Amino acid sequence: MSRVYNFSAGPAVLPEEVLEECATEMLDYKGSGMSVMEMSHRSSWFQDIIDAAEADLRSLMGIPENYRVLFLQGGDSLLFSSVFMNLATNGKADYIITGNWAKKAYQEAKILGDPAVVASSEDATYTYIPDCSDLPIREDASYVYICQNNTIYGTRYHELPNTKGHILVADQSSMFLSEPCDVTKFGLIHAGVQKNVGPAGVQVVIVREDLIPQDLPGVPTMLRFKTQADKGSLYNTPNCWGIYVCGLVFKWIARNGGLAGMKAQNEEKAALLYDYLDESELFHGTVRACDRSTSNAPFVTGNKDLDAEFVKAATAAGLVNLKGHRTVGGMRASMYNAMPKAGVEKLVDFMKDFEVSHK
Amino acid sequence: MSRVYNFSAGPAVLPEEVLEECATEMLDYKGSGMSVMEMSHRSSWFQDIIDAAEADLRSLMGIPENYRVLFLQGGDSLLFSSVFMNLATNGKADYIITGNWAKKAYQEAKILGDPAVVASSEDATYTYIPDCSDLPIREDASYVYICQNNTIYGTRYHELPNTKGHILVADQSSMFLSEPCDVTKFGLIHAGVQKNVGPAGVQVVIVREDLIPQDLPGVPTMLRFKTQADKGSLYNTPNCWGIYVCGLVFKWIARNGGLAGMKAQNEEKAALLYDYLDESELFHGTVRACDRSTSNAPFVTGNKDLDAEFVKAATAAGLVNLKGHRTVGGMRASMYNAMPKAGVEKLVDFMKDFEVSHK
Repeated sequence: MSRVYNFSAGPAVLPEEVLEECATEMLDYKGSGMSVMEMSHRSSWFQDIIDAAEADLRSLMGIPENYRVLFLQGGDSLLFSSVFMNLATNGKADYIITGNWAKKAYQEAKILGDPAVVASSEDATYTYIPDCSDLPIREDASYVYICQNNTIYGTRYHELPNTKGHILVADQSSMFLSEPCDVTKFGLIHAGVQKNVGPAGVQVVIVREDLIPQDLPGVPTMLRFKTQADKGSLYNTPNCWGIYVCGLVFKWIARNGGLAGMKAQNEEKAALLYDYLDESELFHGTVRACDRSTSNAPFVTGNKDLDAEFVKAATAAGLVNLKGHRTVGGMRASMYNAMPKAGVEKLVDFMKDFEVSHK
Repeated sequence: MSRVYNFSAGPAVLPEEVLEECATEMLDYKGSGMSVMEMSHRSSWFQDIIDAAEADLRSLMGIPENYRVLFLQGGDSLLFSSVFMNLATNGKADYIITGNWAKKAYQEAKILGDPAVVASSEDATYTYIPDCSDLPIREDASYVYICQNNTIYGTRYHELPNTKGHILVADQSSMFLSEPCDVTKFGLIHAGVQKNVGPAGVQVVIVREDLIPQDLPGVPTMLRFKTQADKGSLYNTPNCWGIYVCGLVFKWIARNGGLAGMKAQNEEKAALLYDYLDESELFHGTVRACDRSTSNAPFVTGNKDLDAEFVKAATAAGLVNLKGHRTVGGMRASMYNAMPKAGVEKLVDFMKDFEVSHK
């Protein structure tokens, strides 16, 4: 078997140790005589799995007791609607648009009520994060919404917006658990796990308890946060396998220095690539340097044919999924928690060789 | 390793061969150098997986070309809402209530519009299927809804209701792919895969193309069937791992005689248990014999302490998850496709021994 270095933006690389645990326990989870995939979600076996996952996540992030942790299904695209339904009960919420996902969140809110855009970097294809120090936030806005790291464009908030006392809601999908996070700064955090944490099909929601509405007339049961909050995410059958793998990854993160350890490793990997991009005459980053994402680094040569040649050659060398998103073009290297430093070193060495041979 | 016989109602037993494939391919799917859990849903690797899954399902069930197959997330509990939103655009649909799940589907429709109950067996704790030959179906009902096999109560429709020309919608979760199915009799079939087909977290929807509305004002994008129908279930990141395992199970079913083969094996297993229940002086089935489910068989001794003693002893003997649902009590044996005949034989032998020793 020959493993590749997988720079996919998501679903993405997982720790090899975790995959090995999954394989080892596949037919018999800890002497239960069955796979986690075969377990009743009402069994004590699975209750222990989901309880440990929540406890480990709380410990990693330091989640305060007045926040609830939910493991949901349906994709962040469904959360774009349910966040608005649950938290914007007056129909008003303000959005900062820094990429496709924030825009989609706004568009879903638009189907249901009266959201407003208070800042946007769409004018420059989302290559920067707008100044968020003094935004025209509506007084009656229920929350201010951001996508904290923009997977496609490769930008992130290095400072959180001034919400002028309003609740901050963040989609953290592509930076979730990549660094320490002060949960108290947020009313709600949501994240698809398929970047840093697990297989696609689980959304983690961390929400301040007092923001969960008791009653939501006309809203389907499954879209009310109270439904799963009251039942420990077990109102109906959850994605048991996905939650199990997330739990294994949480333990792997804890073994590897926790979120401070992840941050140090992620910044080291990002610096390797960005430092080279800043000195290269062939490859160039696509976003404003001060807004760069630690997780996702898009870059181009400026020549589409050369970009394609590079992606093909890199793939042959075991550096895969480097093709950029269709809206940006060129290349994108996603360097999530489970991407080893050796992978980024190999990528940078490969880029250097490519540059030399294409002078 | 010692595998048990797992009679769980769902999530439930999966074919050992499939689990072995999952373990073998965990770190390197067919030379890709990565796990299916690490694959971009936009990669050709995953496109091949989902395409094969759909093609194999179409072949197994003989799904006509004018039906779309969707692989969704969110649980059947979410589908209770989205089926009504998509198919009852006039706000009216009629429900036959034969258990908790049909009732929940009705209650979700009630949040959104004006459903009606046209028959129910709630008066007798759902121990039978009502006569559905001449129901008071409203002329303007958009569809008639049934739960075709009742996991909790252990009944099933042996004959489909007379819908008087209306579209039939069925939740087939606990009987999905357990026997041949004439898809043309249905407008829509939905099924959670965690009974007969795969790990929890995937819903299969089979829907007649002309029933998918083009426009649904006010409905979130993710709840419109058109969204995923137009994008081959890849509008957003799906539960990739779940779809992969379903695909392996589809191939396993095909290798084992297809749906006709499943039906023969399932009827043989059910007969083993029901024949014994009919002759036993200790154990008794809880539902009307002519309405018995092939998948789920609840039974009791009539003595709660003895029931508990039986469940405990069976567990110790490797016959697990036999405790009945809290609303029925006693025991329940779920005998899905992947439960080997040997498992049911061992259960019946164990019951016989228990009866002899408790005379």
